Amino acid sequence: MAAQNKSSRIDEWLLQKIHRAAGHPAVRLELRNSAEVSPRDALAVANIVIQDRNSLLRLLLDPEAEFGDAYSEGRITLEGDLVSALELLYRSMSEAQHHSWYVKLVSKCMEYVQRNSLRGSRRNIQRHYDLNTDFYRLWLDPQLVYTCAYYSSPSATLEQAQVAKLDYVCRKVQLQPGERVVEAGCGWGALALHMAKNYGVTVRAFNISREQILFARRRAKELGLDHQVEFIEDDYRNISGACDAFVSVGMLEHVGREHYRDLGSIIHQSLTKTGRGLLHFIGRNYPRPFSTWTRKRIFPGAYAPALGEVMQIFEPWDLSILDVENLRRHYAKTLEHWLARFDKSEQQISEMFSPEFVRTWRLYLAGAVAGFRVGTLQLFQIVFARNACQLVPWTRAHLYTKAQHEEQETKWMYATS
Amino acid sequence: MAAQNKSSRIDEWLLQKIHRAAGHPAVRLELRNSAEVSPRDALAVANIVIQDRNSLLRLLLDPEAEFGDAYSEGRITLEGDLVSALELLYRSMSEAQHHSWYVKLVSKCMEYVQRNSLRGSRRNIQRHYDLNTDFYRLWLDPQLVYTCAYYSSPSATLEQAQVAKLDYVCRKVQLQPGERVVEAGCGWGALALHMAKNYGVTVRAFNISREQILFARRRAKELGLDHQVEFIEDDYRNISGACDAFVSVGMLEHVGREHYRDLGSIIHQSLTKTGRGLLHFIGRNYPRPFSTWTRKRIFPGAYAPALGEVMQIFEPWDLSILDVENLRRHYAKTLEHWLARFDKSEQQISEMFSPEFVRTWRLYLAGAVAGFRVGTLQLFQIVFARNACQLVPWTRAHLYTKAQHEEQETKWMYATS
Repeated sequence: MAAQNKSSRIDEWLLQKIHRAAGHPAVRLELRNSAEVSPRDALAVANIVIQDRNSLLRLLLDPEAEFGDAYSEGRITLEGDLVSALELLYRSMSEAQHHSWYVKLVSKCMEYVQRNSLRGSRRNIQRHYDLNTDFYRLWLDPQLVYTCAYYSSPSATLEQAQVAKLDYVCRKVQLQPGERVVEAGCGWGALALHMAKNYGVTVRAFNISREQILFARRRAKELGLDHQVEFIEDDYRNISGACDAFVSVGMLEHVGREHYRDLGSIIHQSLTKTGRGLLHFIGRNYPRPFSTWTRKRIFPGAYAPALGEVMQIFEPWDLSILDVENLRRHYAKTLEHWLARFDKSEQQISEMFSPEFVRTWRLYLAGAVAGFRVGTLQLFQIVFARNACQLVPWTRAHLYTKAQHEEQETKWMYATS
Repeated sequence: MAAQNKSSRIDEWLLQKIHRAAGHPAVRLELRNSAEVSPRDALAVANIVIQDRNSLLRLLLDPEAEFGDAYSEGRITLEGDLVSALELLYRSMSEAQHHSWYVKLVSKCMEYVQRNSLRGSRRNIQRHYDLNTDFYRLWLDPQLVYTCAYYSSPSATLEQAQVAKLDYVCRKVQLQPGERVVEAGCGWGALALHMAKNYGVTVRAFNISREQILFARRRAKELGLDHQVEFIEDDYRNISGACDAFVSVGMLEHVGREHYRDLGSIIHQSLTKTGRGLLHFIGRNYPRPFSTWTRKRIFPGAYAPALGEVMQIFEPWDLSILDVENLRRHYAKTLEHWLARFDKSEQQISEMFSPEFVRTWRLYLAGAVAGFRVGTLQLFQIVFARNACQLVPWTRAHLYTKAQHEEQETKWMYATS
């Protein structure tokens, strides 16, 4: 009895240590059948139950990575709303956060192991994007657009918002009929097909995910656009030939900051003397890596840059930044839709993957909703151009005309099976 | 006779050297009564006549500084359109440019001599802005807004465009009645007064130009806004107290890149936990100093930063960039208006200042038109906010509604004499 009391006191002390390290969030921490810590001055929004002392100890060593893994494996359970709890944690942690030498070391090692060499990038990308197209079909929109949508109003549907995003990108770069576009990192091909179909351009779209390229080629054929859009299974570093517009939506996160100059050099080589382009990517307010958990379980080799870091792409080549927009709230909304659909499809997903996988992905999606809500994650669209580019409008008003925007028919093209 | 021929050949060789160093622009170079160089494959847009060999030699040593000074003193004359000639020169030079060790040394020394310490800044600012308000009144709009205007259409008048700019800034930061605004570098006070009058906010506006502060205080009194707007003669580094919005239009150019962290720290200290703000400034595509001529004759201590450098202001404090807009074409248009009015008022200006001064300022205004047209200069407006800021609109459409924008009454307030 005395021994148990003593170990309970140690457990409580450890729980308090974790609670403090997380910046005293308004959540209750419990080690099952042993000890608990409640928030001091607030009602607990959620109850986090650690199932065993081993998990508790590992949580002390590397809180972010262990929280994720233990949640996935059911060694940590959470009572309450997952997104709200994560929002609270992110808010309190962003004020308290300083990583231990252990976490920093793991993070550095991971950076090396997952480095984005030509081969490394292929391995990193395949681990996420080649999972299974049927899986993504269960919770993405019909065109499988796996990047932040654009909601002209918060009540728009995901389908409407994804089509609006594709079109917003086209209008931001002022595509003209007959122009040549290069797309770096084209996912399942929705943007390339939208540009070709609605703006009369020719597109060469690059991607190193084999699954996605095969899918995109099939769609191009079905839509009769295969003479206008070429889907190329290759790395952005191997792009050659000239283009009038260079577009990349959701690839920069996988480039890695040590390769921004390479990307800039490719853009410079590709763009004509009057060319322009757009980068769309998850960013940060200041330089910081993704958690080791995110890089281990979700996006190997990924890095979301601060704007200061991104300028390495443009500055060496005298490219003008014309427009930067932060669409963080739109990504929170997009992810809410994805998470809701994911939860709705849980039965089917469970038939495809293990229960651990389902919990891992739910945590990833919920964590991303929380991150974009709280502001640990940002979503930037950057429009850039050569100095001699003639297609710079007087104002940005053309992006917000009713005809183009809200009343646009949402005639998205259904994905084929 | 033989001696003269020989010296003419040397002169021609020197002119060719200058022409090559400038990237072979389509202008004709002439040393009066001695030699000339014409562009190879193009018609000359302008004829630049160097009046004496001494000026020619000095031009070799420090082309930018000497061209400016010789033009001001009449030792170089230009036949043809000054703006077009400068556009050509900037285009060809931006491809050819590499500075000599001499220019680099002069540039570095100048940086030190004109450094923006508290005292240095005051000296630098006074040299430009304390010249004489009546002088600026001759070629600025009635409210004396001495920064880039916003033209909802290129045919708007300067007066309309300056009022539109003041309002655009207010709407970008979403001012709410009763809020507290800090303005760093307020010029003659037009923005502070516009915010107070039209948005019901209270403003503390800082400036170290005595002339401008006195003028602004008089206007505040006349408009009955002196209980809402306080004009403070002090440096931005001495700003204290809390504000909901931090705005600075056209001051960053005078801060100097070694003080960006200071400015960021002041913004961080001032802004509430839900605050936001806007910086408006002349920028660059990549880091490069102003010419030594510009710093010697026009803007001592000035520096126009690349966006990558500016991020030093925001990143250390976890501030989100919400919106960056490049209004370069608007500044070219604004400067065209200023230059036209300047030329129209030449008679009156000549009665105030020397002929050298008039030529110096015409070259400065014409050079700026050319710079913004060609893209050696950019104009950025950055909207930033705390993560917890609630005033982030879903889209930027509200900036482009007809009611607010085009149909807005241009009821600018006339400056008092």
